[in-house]
Amino acid sequence: MQTQVMENNSKGKGHVPTKMDQCIQNCLNCFRVCEQTLAEALYGNSQNFSQALILIKSCAEICHTSAKFMMMNSAFHVDTCGICAKVCIECADTCESLGDENLRECIEACRACAKSCNEMSKMSH
Amino acid sequence: MQTQVMENNSKGKGHVPTKMDQCIQNCLNCFRVCEQTLAEALYGNSQNFSQALILIKSCAEICHTSAKFMMMNSAFHVDTCGICAKVCIECADTCESLGDENLRECIEACRACAKSCNEMSKMSH
Amino acid sequence: MQTQVMENNSKGKGHVPTKMDQCIQNCLNCFRVCEQTLAEALYGNSQNFSQALILIKSCAEICHTSAKFMMMNSAFHVDTCGICAKVCIECADTCESLGDENLRECIEACRACAKSCNEMSKMSH
Amino acid sequence: MQTQVMENNSKGKGHVPTKMDQCIQNCLNCFRVCEQTLAEALYGNSQNFSQALILIKSCAEICHTSAKFMMMNSAFHVDTCGICAKVCIECADTCESLGDENLRECIEACRACAKSCNEMSKMSH
Repeated sequence: MQTQVMENNSKGKGHVPTKMDQCIQNCLNCFRVCEQTLAEALYGNSQNFSQALILIKSCAEICHTSAKFMMMNSAFHVDTCGICAKVCIECADTCESLGDENLRECIEACRACAKSCNEMSKMSH
Repeated sequence: MQTQVMENNSKGKGHVPTKMDQCIQNCLNCFRVCEQTLAEALYGNSQNFSQALILIKSCAEICHTSAKFMMMNSAFHVDTCGICAKVCIECADTCESLGDENLRECIEACRACAKSCNEMSKMSH
Repeated sequence: MQTQVMENNSKGKGHVPTKMDQCIQNCLNCFRVCEQTLAEALYGNSQNFSQALILIKSCAEICHTSAKFMMMNSAFHVDTCGICAKVCIECADTCESLGDENLRECIEACRACAKSCNEMSKMSH
Repeated sequence: MQTQVMENNSKGKGHVPTKMDQCIQNCLNCFRVCEQTLAEALYGNSQNFSQALILIKSCAEICHTSAKFMMMNSAFHVDTCGICAKVCIECADTCESLGDENLRECIEACRACAKSCNEMSKMSH
């Protein structure tokens, strides 16, 4: 790895930040603030509703992460799939409790995902 | 690349889907359905409000993508930064028009990001 | 939006950073450094090969972003799909030039994606 | 939620897929295939090296996810931070064992992130 990384290493400590470094920081900061602003707005809704929206958002996120861990055959997919199953089940249960027919597809997708993630989480490292 | 990919290639056409392949599909499907359900809920709000939330969500997304393109020094960062600047400006303008002091940090982060992304987008490929 | 955001706004300027704020920053910093380290390692490979890997990585990223913009019905999907088509074509062409049969599925997925993203990018805002 | 989702619900079962639905699927498929192709190429390297690259990639991913869970104040950040700490430590240890001075920043970022994520993971739900 020595040679590979060495040739192109311009991100080390002590290097003068370029305009691009600054732009990366601005992008990551804007990403963070936007995500937090959105979450705060979601929480601002009535209790049940806001909880469902944050769960749906969390569920999308952890499903995506678990898919990525499996796509790269990382041994840690066992852990991410374990959490994924938990979040999917809570998301499905919360959506179910709202009794909204339009959440049917979401509930079904969560149940199916929880089932297979649960199996994956039982594989040994 | 031949040898490198060949040894481990179990994802090609015609291979029998494993439980993990199925789990990846379930995760990606759940990710998609959750994202769409969330977006539909956001659109269900009153006009100005929903537009702002979707813009804030879009803004978070494209900022993240632009940061990633710059982190990997991809030549296409010129394109992603160009869109990023556009989305940041529209997001800031829309938030501004709501006259909500709590959106101040979001507006400022968007303006700062738009400014540096705009500069990046003018670099030649 | 006023009330919604106001009640829960603990991320504004001047607030004392909590342990969680610090953890968010540590996570985002680690995310950035890992992504850059990986990209540097990929660039460290022989010319054609490294270019293909960075293109495949860029392609995964922009496909994901375009999917998200469409999932949330953002008007900017026209822009993200436009870039997506460009990146997919360059990724497919570069992979094609390597003449590696194991890249076949990747090339086909890129071509199919480029085709439909190209159509999407021609829709007016 | 009824009214909110109902008005705009065009993604339910049985609806005819639009060109955009198809484009979303093509994007997600291309995303999946590209990620898998990249991972296979990384695994194709010599043993230690490939393990480090996959760990660095996993680490970037889970750091990003943990940041997102904390940004949205999801109760499940306790779980994601727990895994994040585990992955960061393994990533730092593996990078350390390679004895490459250019991985110094990555190792430090991982250690700092592991420390604060570990604290977060001990908070009760």
